[in-house]
Parts: sequence; structure tokens; C-alpha cells
Amino acid sequence: MNRIFIYDTTLRDGSQGEGISFSLQDKLAITLKLDDLGVDYIEGGYPIANPKDESYFKEVKSLKLRHAKIAAFGSTRKAEVRIEEDKNVKALLLAETPVVTIVGKSWDSQVKNVLKVSLDENLKMISDTIAYLKSKGREVFFDAEHFFDGYKKNREYALKVLQEAQASGADAMVLCDTNGGSLPVEIAEIVGAIREKIKGMLGIHVHNDGDLAVANTLASVNQGVRQVQGTINGIGERCGNADLCSIIPNLVLKMGYRCLEDKGLRKLTEVSRYIYETANLLLRSNQPFVGVSAFAHKGGLHINAIQKDKGTYEHIPPESVGNERKILISELSGSSTILAKVEKFHLTHDRKFMKDILEEVQNLENEGYQFESAEASFELLVRKKIGRYKTFFDLEGFRVIVEKRENGLPVTEATVKVKVNNIQELSASEGSGPVNALDSALRKALERFYPSLKDMKLVDYKVRVINPRSGTAAKVRVIIESQDKENIWNTVGVSENVIEASWYALVDSIEYKLLKEQEVETEE
Amino acid sequence: MNRIFIYDTTLRDGSQGEGISFSLQDKLAITLKLDDLGVDYIEGGYPIANPKDESYFKEVKSLKLRHAKIAAFGSTRKAEVRIEEDKNVKALLLAETPVVTIVGKSWDSQVKNVLKVSLDENLKMISDTIAYLKSKGREVFFDAEHFFDGYKKNREYALKVLQEAQASGADAMVLCDTNGGSLPVEIAEIVGAIREKIKGMLGIHVHNDGDLAVANTLASVNQGVRQVQGTINGIGERCGNADLCSIIPNLVLKMGYRCLEDKGLRKLTEVSRYIYETANLLLRSNQPFVGVSAFAHKGGLHINAIQKDKGTYEHIPPESVGNERKILISELSGSSTILAKVEKFHLTHDRKFMKDILEEVQNLENEGYQFESAEASFELLVRKKIGRYKTFFDLEGFRVIVEKRENGLPVTEATVKVKVNNIQELSASEGSGPVNALDSALRKALERFYPSLKDMKLVDYKVRVINPRSGTAAKVRVIIESQDKENIWNTVGVSENVIEASWYALVDSIEYKLLKEQEVETEE
Repeated sequence: MNRIFIYDTTLRDGSQGEGISFSLQDKLAITLKLDDLGVDYIEGGYPIANPKDESYFKEVKSLKLRHAKIAAFGSTRKAEVRIEEDKNVKALLLAETPVVTIVGKSWDSQVKNVLKVSLDENLKMISDTIAYLKSKGREVFFDAEHFFDGYKKNREYALKVLQEAQASGADAMVLCDTNGGSLPVEIAEIVGAIREKIKGMLGIHVHNDGDLAVANTLASVNQGVRQVQGTINGIGERCGNADLCSIIPNLVLKMGYRCLEDKGLRKLTEVSRYIYETANLLLRSNQPFVGVSAFAHKGGLHINAIQKDKGTYEHIPPESVGNERKILISELSGSSTILAKVEKFHLTHDRKFMKDILEEVQNLENEGYQFESAEASFELLVRKKIGRYKTFFDLEGFRVIVEKRENGLPVTEATVKVKVNNIQELSASEGSGPVNALDSALRKALERFYPSLKDMKLVDYKVRVINPRSGTAAKVRVIIESQDKENIWNTVGVSENVIEASWYALVDSIEYKLLKEQEVETEE
Repeated sequence: MNRIFIYDTTLRDGSQGEGISFSLQDKLAITLKLDDLGVDYIEGGYPIANPKDESYFKEVKSLKLRHAKIAAFGSTRKAEVRIEEDKNVKALLLAETPVVTIVGKSWDSQVKNVLKVSLDENLKMISDTIAYLKSKGREVFFDAEHFFDGYKKNREYALKVLQEAQASGADAMVLCDTNGGSLPVEIAEIVGAIREKIKGMLGIHVHNDGDLAVANTLASVNQGVRQVQGTINGIGERCGNADLCSIIPNLVLKMGYRCLEDKGLRKLTEVSRYIYETANLLLRSNQPFVGVSAFAHKGGLHINAIQKDKGTYEHIPPESVGNERKILISELSGSSTILAKVEKFHLTHDRKFMKDILEEVQNLENEGYQFESAEASFELLVRKKIGRYKTFFDLEGFRVIVEKRENGLPVTEATVKVKVNNIQELSASEGSGPVNALDSALRKALERFYPSLKDMKLVDYKVRVINPRSGTAAKVRVIIESQDKENIWNTVGVSENVIEASWYALVDSIEYKLLKEQEVETEE
């Protein structure tokens, strides 16, 4: 059997990550996204933990899912409580999910020191809870918490816990590396030994504290595990859970397993970015498979080679996971980088042009520009060079004033004077800082002529001092990331004056937006 | 032999990462930091690639390193070129490093399609280069590029490449997973087979495209590899190189190997953060071992359990890698750091004072302050708290104007009004940017009262956006480094307004200078 079942716990264990908090609407939207991706199970929350999760289980029933089954998560019944009266178990049933996942302890010292019950009572708590939920028609998975640590200390008891769960009817026994500190060789050895003894479906749930969660998951699959638990982007408490964005492509593209439905794999990058956006987290650009730099090439030699043979520096085709290749421009790269970038303008045969643009990029880079993270500015540069560019507005001037009196808050005002089609427009705006005020004033002046600028917003702003040893007279590079309904783009500005550097990046950003729009109109 | 040699390539392969660009000063400072950490080899750069690396190799000779050896990196000689005349090999010798690392091809199709030379000529290029560098007294490592991909396609040739390198005198044969796409089971199997045939020292250099770089490195060590290459924080092209911040603690704490010198492991977190700061990258909070959330506990149950038994949700003691536990609900982070810093005031016994200062620091850190790299500001904070502080001047107000007309240079003016001993002083100054103008105006106003300020200058200025997703309304943290004839000190300011943030850091810097002087006078 080469089918692996994907159990996503982004909404439950993932939401334990620092700074992560999903609203009810977020959780429902993510559920649809995960279903579209094609995961088999979606662990939606912990019904007893908070009212938000309770509402989630109510509302999720009205979503039309294509494939995924929703799971509710909770603990075994409490010690010395009748199962029908256990609050947690009641809440799990009220969630009315087809699947219930129960966590129980499998490390003897945890049972004694944290739960403070006897080893036998713990076994009863597990078997009671599973049998009861099975009798209510649920598919039941059993998460054996701290399984690997427990097995290392008392393998007999850890095994007994699994046997008890299996005997009570659990549909899968999930081995958890709760501390996330196990090594792949240990995981392989222990799962191999368990596989001999437990005939039912085995699952794996590992954390990434040793930076080995993906490897540990794959090692367990090699030993016969068929249910894989993890989260999108590996979000979760401490160092996070195993990252499904890495596990799934490894399983499918490298190990020949089947998971997700048709075409699901190609949606992986999109789903990854969606989760970052919804969780309001910065995406990790060098994230394997789905990161924006995952297929980015910088060294000139590499780029030369990749044009000859794509397999040279790419372990998989980027499009197989819905990602794309990116050629970076930097001082380390020779002309081949720029060549690749300019390809879309069909100008690479023009040797004089190529020489000119190369020289200009190098000059600008010497001044402190950096185009690898500011492709929109690079495109504007090329367009200006080849005449495929029109000015949308002329700057007549700007003025920014920051004023502070004693210990009061500073007051910041910007005025901008621009000319569009020979009509002069003067605008003024306050802001929380000089760049913010300038940005507001500039938009205010231009929106009258270009109403679509309302759709655009600045989402990221970076300042870097280029030659820091010059103190406050140092040059700064400003990089701005902008976004509208369809696109994200980056622009750059450099100056000894942080306001001027920001201004250049702001202007590029607006011009790029207007240019793209104009092109769409022309095509239509 | 349980000693593993750590070969750091942060400065070379790491700098290929998207958005990473180290200045010469950065590279030298990082070299000292890595040496202090205790790595065995520091690959400093690619002498032929650019003038910055050339200068690095000149200047690095004057650094006093405790332990690390510097390595220069380059390719084998070109085809059909006499070794003495090969530009790259000449550049490598001119770098005058004790170690030279040579990269050569070991994948037959790459030799044919990218290098476009015969398989035999490639072997000669490798042996010539190694033998020649050995004859010049260098320690020589051979990086077998694409080794694992090559071995899978043509194991006979890949092996021959290693044998040739060994026969020519290479001190280590480094197996590279250049595409970063191999699986741990493949790595283990291939390294195991190679170990049988190659008796010399083996090294490993892997990339993280499959999210398996750490696991792949550990798998190769299990098979006898003794030199491990990687970068701090795993920075590097695409998905980065293997992360030494994860590899080293796994090797030492879990697998019982020796690496780094005494106490090196405890510096790991500090070095990780230093590299992020220098590269101006946002740190990855959930990074294993060294991330700020790596030992952060959120769930109430977890915190309860961790108080009963620290091993419950921690795979290693956080302090073993210089990190610390963080309880997210009660926000107790940083207390040990603060304790250490307050010690010199002999006040750690004063519980109320410690509680107050802890609270204030935590509040400021929540606002975006960071005192780790701004100890002078921290000292001022403590002095204000305990009354060992006097005001040297009062700010009545400042105003900064930046004005730009069409395409002219911007004009920047600052006026500052201060009061010293009830005498009001108003001054104005121009500058290359708003902070520079403000700095000049403030000094001008104060030098009349405090002539020693003439000896002081600002040597470094850093701006960092703290919450980048807020665009231009984001908060910024400014860190200023100042210097006089005897000392160097750092101060910090935070605000949504970059001018105000800079102002706070400037004022702290001047006050700190005056305070130190006053103390010297008092002592005399």
C-alpha cells in the first residue's frame, strides 16, 4: 500500500505557535483551503478549550467539503470519572465530527508525576474513552503523547498503551514525539519494533525541536507508518510541528507515495502563503519547496549552468509544487543573471543593450542599490532604457517637517507638489513618521488622476544602512513591498537621506502599479 | 574518534542567500565571532569573485584568531590551462590562507554538458590543482560538487573523482549534496559505501532544499564523516545550507560527539542572533535550539507540567545552547540577562528594585527596544531608576525640514532648542539627511557647555523596522554606536517616527558620554 493519509493539525496544534491566533472566520476559511488542497483529515480544534472552537464545530458542518473529514481533539476521560459524565468527552461528542482524536499518556513517569494516577488507571482511561467514542460511531485516532521518550524509558508500558488502544477499537495509533527531540535513527528503530507488534494503522506526530521533524516523519513512513500528522508551514508551539509543505512533496516526488488528490501538490505553494497571510506571519523566504527563494539563483556560475540544464541546481521542477524559478541580480552574478531577467523583453540578442544595462546595474549596485529584492525597480530601469516607459507624473517638489516640543509627541507633516498632464496638484498630509506622511501626501495628490491607487497598499518597509561606519551621514537603502488585489512587487531607493531614499522607492512602486495597469488595458 | 571538525561557510556559501550582502567590516567582525564560538575552519570567500573578498583576505591576516583557520574557496584550474597560469588558482594562492578548498565536478553529465570537457581532463584538473596547492604548503579540502546526484547516475566515475583527489593529497574529500534534494536513507547508504573505499577524512556539505539538511548531515556522520560544513542559521542560496545552529547541538548533546571548544555551545544563540543582525535579516522565532520561541511555552497545561518536570516539554536544557525558557503568559523572559547586567550596581539583593527594573525592561522590549546591543541605554535606564543620574540638558524642541525641488538634491535643515543650567541655546544645522542634521545641530547647541563632546563621534548607525507588515507606519528601532578617545558605546531609540527614534538614541549617546566624564572627575 503506497497511500499515505495526511492529517492536518494547523488549526489545533498549529495555533499553539507564538503569536498565532486564528479568528473563527479564519478557521473556516482555512478549512476550505485545506480541503481544496486535498488533505484527508482536518483537526479543527479542542472543543473544551474555548468558545471559539465550540462555534467552529457548529459552523463547519455547513461547509461543503469535497474530501476532508473534520476531527475534534481532546484528552482521555479524567481519572475516576464515569465516561458518560466526563466533560471533555461530552464536548467531543457535541462537536459531532466524523473523527475524534484522543490524546493519552504513554510515558510511565508522566502518568505518575503529571497525571498522578496509577499506570493501570491510565490504561483504563484510554480504553474506556476509545471504546465509548467508537460505540457512538466515531472514527477514533489515539495520540500516544511522549511515545518515543516513554518507549526509551519503559518500552513495556509504552507498548501496552498502544495495545490497549488497539484492543479498544482505535482506528489508528499515532506515535508522538511530543518534545521533538528524537533522532531519525531512533525513530526508525522504534517504529520498526512497534510495527512488529501492532498490526493496526500507525500514525506519526512529531515536533521540530531538533530540526528533524521532516526526517523523523519520513523515517517512520519507511517503517510502515501510514498516517502523517503535521501543519502547514510547520507552525506550532516552540519550534513547531512537522511541516506538511516539506513532507508531502518528499513523499510524493521522491518516495513514490500517493497523497492529496490529483493536482493537490501544485496548490501547495499557494496554500502555504495563504496560511502565512491569514496568521499574519512573515513568510520564510528560504522555506524548502514553497518559499519565495526556494528556487532562486544568485551565483553567476549557477545561472549559467541552470540555463544549460535545469536539473543542475534544482532538485525538483518548481512548478510541481506550484512555485517558480527566480533569477536574482547581485554583485556575485555576472551577465548571465541579467540575461535571464531580460529574456522576457526579447532583447538578449542586442549585445550593445545588454552591455549598457549590465553596466548601469553594476554602477547602481556600487552606489548601494540592490535589485535582487526589488524586481519592479529593475523592470522600470530596463523599460526606461528601451523606451517602453512613460512618465505618469512629474515631481515639482516635496517638503517634510518633523517637529517636537519638549516631551510631546512629534508632529509630522508632508506636502507634495506634482504635475499630471500639465495640471498641478498640491497636497499635504500628516503621518506617524516622515515616510508615512510623504506616502499619504503623494497618494492624495495622485488619486484624483489615478483612482486605482486606492487598491494599492504598502505592506513591508525595510531600511538598511549601507556604509554604517559613516555614522549618521551613512547611505541608506530603502526597500518597499507593495500589494494590490493581484500582485506583490518590490522597489528600492538609495540616498544619504532616508527621506529621499524612501521617496525613490515610493515613486517606483506607484509607477510600476500604473504601468502594469496600462499594459492590461492595452492588451484588452 | 568522536571529534567532529566544524567548517563554517557563512561568509562564502551563506552570502549567496537572497538579500544577504556582507560588507568588508561585517565579514571581519563575523570572523572574530565565529572564532570565538570555536569553529575549526572559516571559509572567508571566493578570492577571484570580487574585490571585497580580495580585501577580506588581506585584512583577515591581521586578526588575532584563537583557534579557527581561514579557508579560501575556488574552483579547480580551467581546462587546458597550465596550473601556474590559472587565474583562479593564482588568486587562491595570493589569499595566503592556511587552508584552500577546491570545488570540482563529480557528476559525469555535468562534466560533459556544463564544463564541456572530457571525463579524463576533469580528473586531471582536480589532481593538478590539489597537488599544486599541496606543494605550496596549503591544507587542501576537495568539495565534490553534485556528488550524490553523480553517484546515483555513475557511481564508478564519482568514486574515481574522490580517489583522484585523495591520491593527489587532498586532506579531506567533501561530499556535496549541491541540489539539496537527497534523502537521509540515500545519504546513509552512499556514504557507507564510500567509507569502505576511501580511507581519508570525509566531509559533508549539503543544502536544505528537501528540508533534510540537518538529518542528512547527521546521517553522514553516523557513517563516518568527520568534517561538517554548514552556515550559521542555515543561510545560503535557495533554501540555504545545513544549519550549524541545529547540527552542532544535535552532535554534542544527543550523539556524544565533541566539537567547538569548551563553552562554545553556550554561545550558539548569541552568535545566531549576531549573524541575523549583521545580515539585517529578521530572526526566525521558531528556529530550533536558538530561536526566541524555541523554548517558549504557551499552553497552560504545558506550563503546569513544565513546572513539575522540565523534561516534559523540553528536549534539552535551553541554557546548554545559551538560550532561555520563555513562559508566554507571564512574560518572564530575559530575567537572567537583566540579572547579569544589574550585578555591577550591587543591587540584585533588592527584590523590589529587581522587580521594577524587570518590569520596565519587559515593557520597553514589548515596545520594540532591545538592550542586548545597546548597553549604554540600559545603564542610563538603571541609573535613572536608582537616582544615580543627573540631567545635562533639557530639550525645548527640535524641528527637521527636508525639502526637495524637482530633480535637485534635497536640502535638510534641523533646528534644536535646548536649555542648560537655565540658559537657552538655539542652534541650526544642515546635514546630508535628517538624522545627520539633527546630530549636528544638537552638538552645536551643547558644545558651548560641554566642550568634550568635540572628541566624540558617531561611528555606526542602524535602522531596523520592527513590525514590517505595517508598511511605512511601522515602528523602527535605531541603534547608534559612538566613540571617543577611550570608549565605544551603543544606544537605542524606538518610535514610529524614524527621526524621533534617532533622537532618543542620539540623546542617550551624549548623556552617556557626559555621565562617564563626570564620574572620572568625581573619582579624581
